Amino acid sequence: MSNTFGRLLRLTSWGESHGPAIGGVLDGCPAGIVISEQEMQKDLDRRRPGQSNITTMRDEPDAVKILSGVFEGKTTGAPIGFIIENKDKNSASYAKIKDIYRPGHADYTMDQKYGFRDWRGGGRTSARETAVRVAAGAVAKKIIDGVKITGYTVQIGEIKISGVDHAEIEKNLVRAPDAEAARKMIELIEKVRKDGDSVGGMVEVVVENAPAGLGAPVYGKLNADIASAMMGINAVKGVEIGSGFKCASMRGSEHNDQLESVNGKLRFKTNNAGGILGGISNGDRIVVRIAVKPTPSILIEQEAVNKNLENTRISVEGRHDPCICPRVVPVAEAMMALVLADHLLLQRTSQI
Amino acid sequence: MSNTFGRLLRLTSWGESHGPAIGGVLDGCPAGIVISEQEMQKDLDRRRPGQSNITTMRDEPDAVKILSGVFEGKTTGAPIGFIIENKDKNSASYAKIKDIYRPGHADYTMDQKYGFRDWRGGGRTSARETAVRVAAGAVAKKIIDGVKITGYTVQIGEIKISGVDHAEIEKNLVRAPDAEAARKMIELIEKVRKDGDSVGGMVEVVVENAPAGLGAPVYGKLNADIASAMMGINAVKGVEIGSGFKCASMRGSEHNDQLESVNGKLRFKTNNAGGILGGISNGDRIVVRIAVKPTPSILIEQEAVNKNLENTRISVEGRHDPCICPRVVPVAEAMMALVLADHLLLQRTSQI
Amino acid sequence: MSNTFGRLLRLTSWGESHGPAIGGVLDGCPAGIVISEQEMQKDLDRRRPGQSNITTMRDEPDAVKILSGVFEGKTTGAPIGFIIENKDKNSASYAKIKDIYRPGHADYTMDQKYGFRDWRGGGRTSARETAVRVAAGAVAKKIIDGVKITGYTVQIGEIKISGVDHAEIEKNLVRAPDAEAARKMIELIEKVRKDGDSVGGMVEVVVENAPAGLGAPVYGKLNADIASAMMGINAVKGVEIGSGFKCASMRGSEHNDQLESVNGKLRFKTNNAGGILGGISNGDRIVVRIAVKPTPSILIEQEAVNKNLENTRISVEGRHDPCICPRVVPVAEAMMALVLADHLLLQRTSQI
Amino acid sequence: MSNTFGRLLRLTSWGESHGPAIGGVLDGCPAGIVISEQEMQKDLDRRRPGQSNITTMRDEPDAVKILSGVFEGKTTGAPIGFIIENKDKNSASYAKIKDIYRPGHADYTMDQKYGFRDWRGGGRTSARETAVRVAAGAVAKKIIDGVKITGYTVQIGEIKISGVDHAEIEKNLVRAPDAEAARKMIELIEKVRKDGDSVGGMVEVVVENAPAGLGAPVYGKLNADIASAMMGINAVKGVEIGSGFKCASMRGSEHNDQLESVNGKLRFKTNNAGGILGGISNGDRIVVRIAVKPTPSILIEQEAVNKNLENTRISVEGRHDPCICPRVVPVAEAMMALVLADHLLLQRTSQI
Repeated sequence: MSNTFGRLLRLTSWGESHGPAIGGVLDGCPAGIVISEQEMQKDLDRRRPGQSNITTMRDEPDAVKILSGVFEGKTTGAPIGFIIENKDKNSASYAKIKDIYRPGHADYTMDQKYGFRDWRGGGRTSARETAVRVAAGAVAKKIIDGVKITGYTVQIGEIKISGVDHAEIEKNLVRAPDAEAARKMIELIEKVRKDGDSVGGMVEVVVENAPAGLGAPVYGKLNADIASAMMGINAVKGVEIGSGFKCASMRGSEHNDQLESVNGKLRFKTNNAGGILGGISNGDRIVVRIAVKPTPSILIEQEAVNKNLENTRISVEGRHDPCICPRVVPVAEAMMALVLADHLLLQRTSQI
Repeated sequence: MSNTFGRLLRLTSWGESHGPAIGGVLDGCPAGIVISEQEMQKDLDRRRPGQSNITTMRDEPDAVKILSGVFEGKTTGAPIGFIIENKDKNSASYAKIKDIYRPGHADYTMDQKYGFRDWRGGGRTSARETAVRVAAGAVAKKIIDGVKITGYTVQIGEIKISGVDHAEIEKNLVRAPDAEAARKMIELIEKVRKDGDSVGGMVEVVVENAPAGLGAPVYGKLNADIASAMMGINAVKGVEIGSGFKCASMRGSEHNDQLESVNGKLRFKTNNAGGILGGISNGDRIVVRIAVKPTPSILIEQEAVNKNLENTRISVEGRHDPCICPRVVPVAEAMMALVLADHLLLQRTSQI
Repeated sequence: MSNTFGRLLRLTSWGESHGPAIGGVLDGCPAGIVISEQEMQKDLDRRRPGQSNITTMRDEPDAVKILSGVFEGKTTGAPIGFIIENKDKNSASYAKIKDIYRPGHADYTMDQKYGFRDWRGGGRTSARETAVRVAAGAVAKKIIDGVKITGYTVQIGEIKISGVDHAEIEKNLVRAPDAEAARKMIELIEKVRKDGDSVGGMVEVVVENAPAGLGAPVYGKLNADIASAMMGINAVKGVEIGSGFKCASMRGSEHNDQLESVNGKLRFKTNNAGGILGGISNGDRIVVRIAVKPTPSILIEQEAVNKNLENTRISVEGRHDPCICPRVVPVAEAMMALVLADHLLLQRTSQI
Repeated sequence: MSNTFGRLLRLTSWGESHGPAIGGVLDGCPAGIVISEQEMQKDLDRRRPGQSNITTMRDEPDAVKILSGVFEGKTTGAPIGFIIENKDKNSASYAKIKDIYRPGHADYTMDQKYGFRDWRGGGRTSARETAVRVAAGAVAKKIIDGVKITGYTVQIGEIKISGVDHAEIEKNLVRAPDAEAARKMIELIEKVRKDGDSVGGMVEVVVENAPAGLGAPVYGKLNADIASAMMGINAVKGVEIGSGFKCASMRGSEHNDQLESVNGKLRFKTNNAGGILGGISNGDRIVVRIAVKPTPSILIEQEAVNKNLENTRISVEGRHDPCICPRVVPVAEAMMALVLADHLLLQRTSQI
């Protein structure tokens, strides 16, 4: 169950960073959806390594191939199997340090769990697996046709955006909705790379036009599923919805989103709820923010311990992103799409 | 599936705020655990309404009765059914406003999802359901014998703790680990209540002695399951682990927890990871913080909309907590216990 | 997961034969269904012990009480919790033999699995648990409104029915659709009881008006779910659908149900399929037969082994059904209803 | 969920008969198991089409390729992704009849469920998918090391075996444990093929050395899971365990397996239980029989209906097995292995 995500719409993923390929099986997808490899590729290209000079240099075309579940351009209701080949593998730099537990990585914990690990490129723990999510997310987006999911970087290091202009997002390398902030973020990333260091950031995902009624009041809460989806993305250390952590210092009279009826339509005057009330979407914009830690692979030498529990030092070479936020954006969008599509299907069974 | 929590250790909950009772079924609990109603009651008493003059006045003994799964004082491997009667129900104040969608509540979203709702005391959306989680959590704690889970309030409104002394927690009404901060927090709560208002806060949960190896690297991440568990608690708007949102402005060289071997034991020099690396526990303290919104039920009049989509105003009477944090503490501990016990059982199958 | 049945419509059951009560939680039930305890009681009364002089003498009213999930006579979408008290418990006859592994019972296997067991009345392994299924099945029947499920006894010992008249079923104590066969069956049961023995039989369940399209082609096959549901009923040793075991000696030209179009409606000329083709219902009558073993509790002395692995002999006193078929009928109907309702809900998500 | 089998050990399958490939993902497999493509291939070769002149002429090497989850010859705990290419596709004969609902096939039911279907070679409903089960079953067999699963044909048409000699099974084309019966079975198959017809049969699976304690007493019964696994194999119409349908005419005194202690070891004097008591394995041989319908694809012309609901006639050309039993044997073994391995893992969590 550890490699399957979702309730009715279920993504099962497989593959390691330096294995022959990675891939997934998307089950529970309704029949009749028009989908193509091209549509999946569009999102994959946004997540692809090597897409700019501020991402990792690993050069993967990340070309997805659909193996099943689609016939004459439409989903058939059968599981959609797809595969993405690993083309640019280079395990040499990993071989040298395979017996050292890298700080900030899952080397030690994987050994504790499984007794040993595939150390090539991080094996199963590599964020390379997120390509599978992005491919599946592209299908999920077709299920929730009309719902618009937009992700963007709101902070990198100490640089924060000062406004949100969706039109700017794909115009800059960091996917920030603010051109000026984007410029400074890129500068910062270039600087930390030169320092052999890395830097964290924050990503926001906004959903427009989600229908009210998605979710459930107790354990199948939409916010709980979103939290699980987002915290499950590699490097994420925090998730907040709507007012988020700000709510801690607010009063109820300030936090409650008052309602009004305008031309016979219910509206919320504010959106501290972030579009979710009591675990169920309220029709307003869903707003989620996630904190992304700095990439743990850095050139700066650090103290570490090896498999024999001896003290040592390590400088992590290899090809890494100095800041992962720009590539987290499409992954977070994909996870949001998977959660929403799942709940949209579940919602079909809520009334007789 | 919306009312079941967990993978191997599964809690299924039922019951409404003003129904005859609430209860749960805890399935997947190993046989041979010594457990009693008294042990479950201890935690229930910490969550109980009416326990002090800063919580709701609803007076519920919350006496749990085990109906199955325990024989001669030990779990048998059969599902543990348990029930908690609702004794102090008063639906009158709810009847008056049953056609109004209360701000900050799930009234509108429940109607959107199910077509209508049990409006008595909030029905299924009431936080009364969390008593079920606390009862089950007490059993989960026995499964993870030796692991210590401690929850406490770290912030209420603008008042933050300035130190953590576990010995203080149960000595004050707000469950803060800092006597001086606790005093100010109580003052603040009394003030907002007098104002007919409410206030938010923040709760931290710390786990000591959790073994390394719990979790999984992709979708069954320990942090993802914790995020889901915590975000699924009523009123929670954010979850962070370890460095949490602070990681956004950190460098890798600063965020990575360097390792050292001391007397043949591996140790982390810092704990920005919050005890979890790559989705798997690393043996260090697990540290989680959650943001709790101010209780939406307030006396201060607010704008609202009724079922006929007419504008109206509402002042929510009834018995409510002006700040829910003190009672969230045992609930968050229980959810943590359920997640950890579940993963401890799963871990038994990770190696041949 | 071992005490939950179903995919979307999920029944979680709890309780032991001689505990204070048994009960269940039915989750995933759509909102808006009119249901009452009376409707559930009707089916429970058909399964109730002590209903005639050919069933066990244990006298249980089996009065079901709904504890949640129903408001103003309709399901709310919340889990339906219900409870049935155990009134007529008498553990004395069990205490005497608690250390002996009874032939045909789960005493030895429960000890092997869990290390010990609740021996009172068979504990969790007692067929008393099937009352929970019947109660839940009554709700499931409301979900599949218009679909008619009819169960009946087709064989007891060597006595087989020679025709099927649904009107006869509830007129005789064995629930056979053939009055003459029923008379002989009752005679046989009375004889084996006098002998201190028991006897097996066969039950058939027929479903009329099930829509085509329920099920799935690979692992979620409707027939596989029915097989699991039926084989999971206590004492069942075989399940067959349509032609069943007869198919082994048939030719394809004989077994294939040829199709015809009559007044623009597709019809099958025969029904060897038993209403299911490729795991999916075809709109024809679903026909299932199950083999029910003779009750293992018999007065006739048998060789047995005790907990210390010493040879011994046992004569099982207590109150038992000499033939369980008449009471299996409502249980098999309930399981069929649960499976069909589950697939009806799943079917809502098969097309975009 | 319809394409995933299992609880802890979970096989997710994908692929269509005439797509580029079929494959699966086996999740939940413990780390540390020595496994190779060669071991998987051995079982695949027993299921392979074209292996003899009494099976289909479709010539598929069915060469399995492991894509993930195995490192340096051992499972890593990561999902095992594997793929089998479809090499010998010929959709021409299917194109001609794509608008006709073939008798005994899922054409009509798939259209009813999904609105349309991939008609090439039966698409997702083709028994070609069972290759995936066999590949995964080979891994499952390694988890239950020491447990021996043996499948064989016991009946084809009216020919039944008269004895069981395991050494004979792989020596004849029908996999019967009786050389003389095998000879007659082969003759019969050749005859029905010449007639343009097909014939059914029966397969038995026997498990030796399964430990006691696998299963659960209520809905996770080992027999229920076996029934689901077996009934879910294409063409299966009945499943019985131990005494099976014979139990209907037996007395309790005859059916109960009496116990004896021999040299301090508990033994059953008979095995009507078929190795399972109260849903839990008792350590005795598990014995399961399944009824397999005659292949529905026959040359003999039959009445059918087309998509426009017009009456028509059809003679199904293409490459088909006149009797599928010999190839069902390895599939049934694989399903048994998957069920047992799953329950062996689950069993690790039954006691504290």
